[in-house]
Amino acid sequence: MKIETKIERFTTPLYMESGRILEPYQIAYETYGELNRDASNVILICHALSGSHHASGLYEGDKKAGWWDGLIGDGKGIDTKKFFVISTNVIGSCFGTTGPMSNNYPSDIPYRLKFPVVTIKDMIKAQKQLLSRLGIYRVKAIVGGSMGGMQALQFAVDYPNFSEKIIALATTYATQPWAIAFNKVAMEAIRRDPRFKNGQYGKDDFKERGLDGLAIGRIAGHISYLSPDSMDMKFGRNYVNNDGLFELFGRYEVERYMEYNTDNFSRMFDPLSYLYIIKAINTFNLSRGYDSLYDAILRIKAETTLISFNSDYLFFPKEMEHIYNMMSRNGQRVKYHNIDSSYGHDAFLVELRKFDHIIKKELEG
Amino acid sequence: MKIETKIERFTTPLYMESGRILEPYQIAYETYGELNRDASNVILICHALSGSHHASGLYEGDKKAGWWDGLIGDGKGIDTKKFFVISTNVIGSCFGTTGPMSNNYPSDIPYRLKFPVVTIKDMIKAQKQLLSRLGIYRVKAIVGGSMGGMQALQFAVDYPNFSEKIIALATTYATQPWAIAFNKVAMEAIRRDPRFKNGQYGKDDFKERGLDGLAIGRIAGHISYLSPDSMDMKFGRNYVNNDGLFELFGRYEVERYMEYNTDNFSRMFDPLSYLYIIKAINTFNLSRGYDSLYDAILRIKAETTLISFNSDYLFFPKEMEHIYNMMSRNGQRVKYHNIDSSYGHDAFLVELRKFDHIIKKELEG
Repeated sequence: MKIETKIERFTTPLYMESGRILEPYQIAYETYGELNRDASNVILICHALSGSHHASGLYEGDKKAGWWDGLIGDGKGIDTKKFFVISTNVIGSCFGTTGPMSNNYPSDIPYRLKFPVVTIKDMIKAQKQLLSRLGIYRVKAIVGGSMGGMQALQFAVDYPNFSEKIIALATTYATQPWAIAFNKVAMEAIRRDPRFKNGQYGKDDFKERGLDGLAIGRIAGHISYLSPDSMDMKFGRNYVNNDGLFELFGRYEVERYMEYNTDNFSRMFDPLSYLYIIKAINTFNLSRGYDSLYDAILRIKAETTLISFNSDYLFFPKEMEHIYNMMSRNGQRVKYHNIDSSYGHDAFLVELRKFDHIIKKELEG
Repeated sequence: MKIETKIERFTTPLYMESGRILEPYQIAYETYGELNRDASNVILICHALSGSHHASGLYEGDKKAGWWDGLIGDGKGIDTKKFFVISTNVIGSCFGTTGPMSNNYPSDIPYRLKFPVVTIKDMIKAQKQLLSRLGIYRVKAIVGGSMGGMQALQFAVDYPNFSEKIIALATTYATQPWAIAFNKVAMEAIRRDPRFKNGQYGKDDFKERGLDGLAIGRIAGHISYLSPDSMDMKFGRNYVNNDGLFELFGRYEVERYMEYNTDNFSRMFDPLSYLYIIKAINTFNLSRGYDSLYDAILRIKAETTLISFNSDYLFFPKEMEHIYNMMSRNGQRVKYHNIDSSYGHDAFLVELRKFDHIIKKELEG
């Protein structure tokens, strides 16, 4: 499947939760599969912190497929022979959608720290504008994990008639201080890095050597995406041969993994976008704008499927259970699966075989 | 109780596990209570990563007491009316014992990165030298939490006749990759901070403004010392009034706590010492030097009390259980208490009321 990124531009204002206005703005997105005649086969995919609209397939010449390629495709859990899948990039990101390094119209100067704070509500409002532009006013399902799951839940609360079903994985009803604290490492590491220059860095400053602050923050992130058990299985107490046990900077395997992954990441992700997106995660709270969490959740009309992973150390299963308990007591249509996995939070990206059949059944059943 | 730090100097070599030699070296320590006639009432206290020999009492003019003041004192869990308590500062530290910022004798230039890697075995070997110097060849008990617990266990394995009892809290038999990964944040944040200057910073460089890398690493540390539940209780989703929810750098209470504590810490702790001590924690492995963990643990003759906390997210209770299971199957004298606490790893420093009676009973019973 050959994939191309499309860009849709909007000259109408996006009224944001902060009271600020984003105008104009643009959204990068991809589609997989074909829209049917009555536009009843649309599935919206929402991405997580480090993701993008590139959820499936390969770009021409590329070797690495989209981040949910194992789940989205012909005959897969989200079957592109049956469904028209739309995957959009969130406001604030650095992969084609308007974000802090976009020009602050009408100037040709990037917003940088003048970019408005983005919330999950803002992200989904923008996505809804995109779908309207494409002539889609209701979708079959919205599916997402982690921050993507926040978007799916927020959609169901804010626009109860918009989606027939939602499937939210490895997420929560409101970001808890534990997760905010992990994000704090990244926020401080980026802010305090002299090469961040209070956001006034050059566009190519990090192409060769990423921002250390972002790499360091990302190490903390990776801890929260894994689990003690997955680290034991993956790395144990092995150390790197050439470094030596008694050298101060000699590394254990787990340390090498962290360095390798985060240094790569810091060359390809914009630090300002990272700050804005973790802020959106921190401020996520389904109850905001409603009388209570109960009132917010009571608005949901979509058939809801909640999937957590028992080893998730970022968003704990009990957070999903809390939503499930509220909804089921209210007689709302909700199913909850707590998947046995040792992969931690990352399970929603890697242990697809453990839940793709659940998603398939929900979408096709 | 008025407290004074004492320093003992050694001109004999300390043969280290790395194969290197430290010579000369000195050890800072404090004592509380009185040594009895037959020197049979000695209790050795071992400190954790950020601790020092100042475990109890107030220095003249000071307001903040030692780190285990609630546990050590007249009539307390470790009763200084009955016991002669010795608390020593570990090799590598920055509070008076020889560490990386000590002069590399005979020069008057600090070791910095030329300081040898220190291990838990090295720390206790030095402590044993100190006790010999004081005429103490056997102690009643060794007590410590976290890295202090590692020292207590290592003592029992390496010198089975040295201590009648050991009490190890919130620790492990070998540091697991989960804990190493948390330390990795600090290691990279310090190394990559330009003001660290590859260890060539000036002695007063961080008096007014601490090293950001140390503060950032410490944020990650604090996450591992707390628990999701303790953060929920302590901070919830409250945010700081003057900052504003929709400001990018507006802070939640949990973020303010992290900033406040870590910025203070980075002004008072030496970054090189921090690197060396987390390295000692990373390399801790009771089985090193023995045929297996089983063989190492089989050497223990001390009556052993293991105390874990069910909400400890740094050293999980199952790690202590593993020691308990091995010892009890071998018929060794061991007791294990898994304390119900929501304070996480920090419980060994703050929830004294939950275990001080256990310690008292073990020492006096």
